[in-house]
Amino acid sequence: MREVAIAGVGMTKFGISEKSNLEMFAEAGLEAIEGSGVEPKDIQALFFGNCLGPFEEGQAHMAPFAASELGLPMSAPATRFEAACATSTVAFRHAAYLVGAGVYDIVLVGGTERAAAMGTSLATRTFAMGSQSKYESPAGLTFPGVFAMAAHMYAKKYTIPLDELKRCMAEVAVKNHYNGSLNPKAHFQKEITVDTVLNSMMVADPLQLFDCCPFSDGASAVVVAEANKVRGLVAHPIYVAGMGQASAGALYLQKDLTRVRARETSIKHAYEEAGVGPEDIDVCELHDCFTIAEILAIESFGFYDFGKGYDAALIGETGFKGKKVINPSGGLKAKGHPIGATGTAQITEIVQQLRGECGERQVEGAKIGLVDTLGGDFGTLCNIILRSS
Amino acid sequence: MREVAIAGVGMTKFGISEKSNLEMFAEAGLEAIEGSGVEPKDIQALFFGNCLGPFEEGQAHMAPFAASELGLPMSAPATRFEAACATSTVAFRHAAYLVGAGVYDIVLVGGTERAAAMGTSLATRTFAMGSQSKYESPAGLTFPGVFAMAAHMYAKKYTIPLDELKRCMAEVAVKNHYNGSLNPKAHFQKEITVDTVLNSMMVADPLQLFDCCPFSDGASAVVVAEANKVRGLVAHPIYVAGMGQASAGALYLQKDLTRVRARETSIKHAYEEAGVGPEDIDVCELHDCFTIAEILAIESFGFYDFGKGYDAALIGETGFKGKKVINPSGGLKAKGHPIGATGTAQITEIVQQLRGECGERQVEGAKIGLVDTLGGDFGTLCNIILRSS
Repeated sequence: MREVAIAGVGMTKFGISEKSNLEMFAEAGLEAIEGSGVEPKDIQALFFGNCLGPFEEGQAHMAPFAASELGLPMSAPATRFEAACATSTVAFRHAAYLVGAGVYDIVLVGGTERAAAMGTSLATRTFAMGSQSKYESPAGLTFPGVFAMAAHMYAKKYTIPLDELKRCMAEVAVKNHYNGSLNPKAHFQKEITVDTVLNSMMVADPLQLFDCCPFSDGASAVVVAEANKVRGLVAHPIYVAGMGQASAGALYLQKDLTRVRARETSIKHAYEEAGVGPEDIDVCELHDCFTIAEILAIESFGFYDFGKGYDAALIGETGFKGKKVINPSGGLKAKGHPIGATGTAQITEIVQQLRGECGERQVEGAKIGLVDTLGGDFGTLCNIILRSS
Repeated sequence: MREVAIAGVGMTKFGISEKSNLEMFAEAGLEAIEGSGVEPKDIQALFFGNCLGPFEEGQAHMAPFAASELGLPMSAPATRFEAACATSTVAFRHAAYLVGAGVYDIVLVGGTERAAAMGTSLATRTFAMGSQSKYESPAGLTFPGVFAMAAHMYAKKYTIPLDELKRCMAEVAVKNHYNGSLNPKAHFQKEITVDTVLNSMMVADPLQLFDCCPFSDGASAVVVAEANKVRGLVAHPIYVAGMGQASAGALYLQKDLTRVRARETSIKHAYEEAGVGPEDIDVCELHDCFTIAEILAIESFGFYDFGKGYDAALIGETGFKGKKVINPSGGLKAKGHPIGATGTAQITEIVQQLRGECGERQVEGAKIGLVDTLGGDFGTLCNIILRSS
C-alpha cells in the first residue's frame, strides 16, 4: 500500500439550511479542493455519502449529480455509499484503500444531508430505517430507546446509581456544548449547564433532550491523495495511519448493549494497522449521538476500563485540560449531525487539529487523532486513525 | 494488482416474490458461497447493493443486516452501494479492486430488490429518483420518456424511418424474450413476436409496453477472491480482466442522447485494462432497460459503427446464431430487472457462459464476456470484462 494523505478539507456550517444537498456539497467540496492545491479536473473519483436524499428531495443516485455540480470529469466515477450515520466514514475508508492500492491518485470524499430541513417527524421516521425494520421498528424501538436501554444496562451492570450516571452524562453534554461554543461551524454555539440537561424534556428515560444530538443540515468533504502527489502542494498533509470497519448486524444479535462489539472489532483493526494503541491517541472525534454513547465509546477504545469511563467528563479528563480530549469540535451533540456528512466532518476536525489550525479549541501538540462513527444501533462501526507526520 | 477470480455465483428466480429483500439475498448469497467452496466464516467483506429498500420495506442500512442473515463474521465490513440500476455492478468493481489490492482475499458481492412487489405506481415514482430531481422529475421526465427521446433522435440523426426503427427495436424484444424462454430463472420465459410488441400498449412514443423491461423482484450474488485462494476449490474460476466506471451527471449535460458518453468513457477504460477490444468479446450482457438501449449500447462498445447497429437483431447478428451474442440470459427485458440485483445477475450469467454451464442458451466456446450496466438516465455507467482463463 502506498502512503495516503489528506490534502484538503471543507465543510459548511452545520445547522438549518435553505440550500439543497448538492449546493451544500458543492460548497464543502470546493473548499476542500481549493485547500488541497489540486484542480477539480485532477479529481479521479468521488466517494459520496447521503442517507435521506430520496425522502427529503426525491433524489437517489446522487453521486454523479454531485460530481457534475462540482465540475469533476466524466472519467471520475462517482459512487454513493450508505451506512446510516457512518456513511461518509465508510466512503472515506474505501477511498483511502483504493488510493493506497494505486487505483486512484487523487479523489474527493464527502457527504451531505438535509436532516433538519425535513422536519422532526419525517427525520425520526427515516432515521429509524437504519435499524432492523423487521424486528426492531415494529416493536416501536427507535434510536433514543436503544441508547436509553444501554444507559439503564450500564448503570445496572456497574452498580452506578442512575442519578449519578445521569449527572455524568449531563457533563458530557456540557463539555461538548462548551467545545461547540468555540467552533464557528457548529450547529449549537452556546454553553449549557448540567441543569440545562436535567431540566430538559424527557425523550426516552433516562435520556433527556440535551442528552440527544440534533438533526442538522450540512455537508463536508476531504481530498485524499497519494502522499507524494500532494507533498509539494500543501503545507501540512495529514496521513492515514490505520482504519477499521465492522458490521454487527441486527440489535437482537448484540449480547450486551454496554459493549459495542463492532467498535471493539473495528478499533482493534485500526490500532493494528496504525501500529498504535489507546495511549497514543491525542485527540478523538467520536460518535456522541447520545451522551451515553460517548461513555461507551471511550471504554471500547481502551481509554478506560469497562465500567470506569462514565465520570470522565465530570472530572474533566475528556475536556481541553484533560488527558484525552474528546470531541473538540462539539461532537454530534453540539457541532450537529447531518448524517451523511458526519464522518468526513469528524475527519475534517481531526485534520485541522493535527495541523494546529483550531484556534481556541486547539488541542496543543496533537500528533495522532482518532475518528469514530457508528451507523444505526450498533450495526456498522468505522474508525480512522490519522497522524500529522 | 493480484489476479482476481469469481469463485461462485448465485441468483434467485427473478419475477414476483413474497420473500423479503434479506430472504432473497440469503438464498442467492448461500448459492454463491456453496458453489465457491468457501465457508461463510471465510468471507472477509460484503459489498451490497439495494436501491428501493427504504421505500419498499422501510429499511435503509441494509448491508450489515444482510451480512448477519448470512452468518458472515462481524469482522467482515458490510457496505451498501447505490448507483441506481448499476448498483451491484459498481459494488462488484470496488470489491474486485480491493481484492486485487490485497485488502481482502475473499468477499461476497451482490444485491437484492423488491421492485415488482412494491407495485407499479410506487416503483415508477421511486425509480424516477435515479434521475436529477431538480431539473428532470419536475419536468415530468421519467425513464421511458428519456429513452423515447433517444429513439426519436436516433431515427432523425441517422435518417431511419421511425417505423423501421420500431420494427428493429421489436426484434430486440423478440430475441431477448426467446433467450429468456431458455432461462429457468428469467422473469418472463415466453416467446413473443414482432406483432406482440407493435400491438402492445403505447408507453412513451415510440416505446410500447414490450419495448420496456419489467419491474422485478430478485437477488444475486458472486464470490470474488484472489485467484490463488480458489484455484483448488472450484473447477472453473472465472477471472476479472478489466473494469470501467464513469459518471455523466445530469441529463442536461448530455450533448447527444444517441451517444451514452459515460459508456464510451467506461468501456474504453475496461478494454484498456483488459488488453482487449470489441472484436474479442464473445458474449455480452448489457443494459436493455428499453429496446433502444440495446441498440445504443452495441454501438458504444464498438461492435457496430454509430448509426449502424439498429438492425443487428433484425438480421440475426446478436442472437445465438449471430456473430456477437447479446443478452443470452434474456437481458433486463425478459430475465427481469430487480434494480439492485441486476449487475451481479449479469455477472452471474457471463460467469456461467464462460464456464459452459448454460445448456440450451450456451454460447459455444465463449472465452471473454462483457457486462454493462447503466444507472439512471446515463448518469452512471459500469463495465466489467471477464475471461475464462
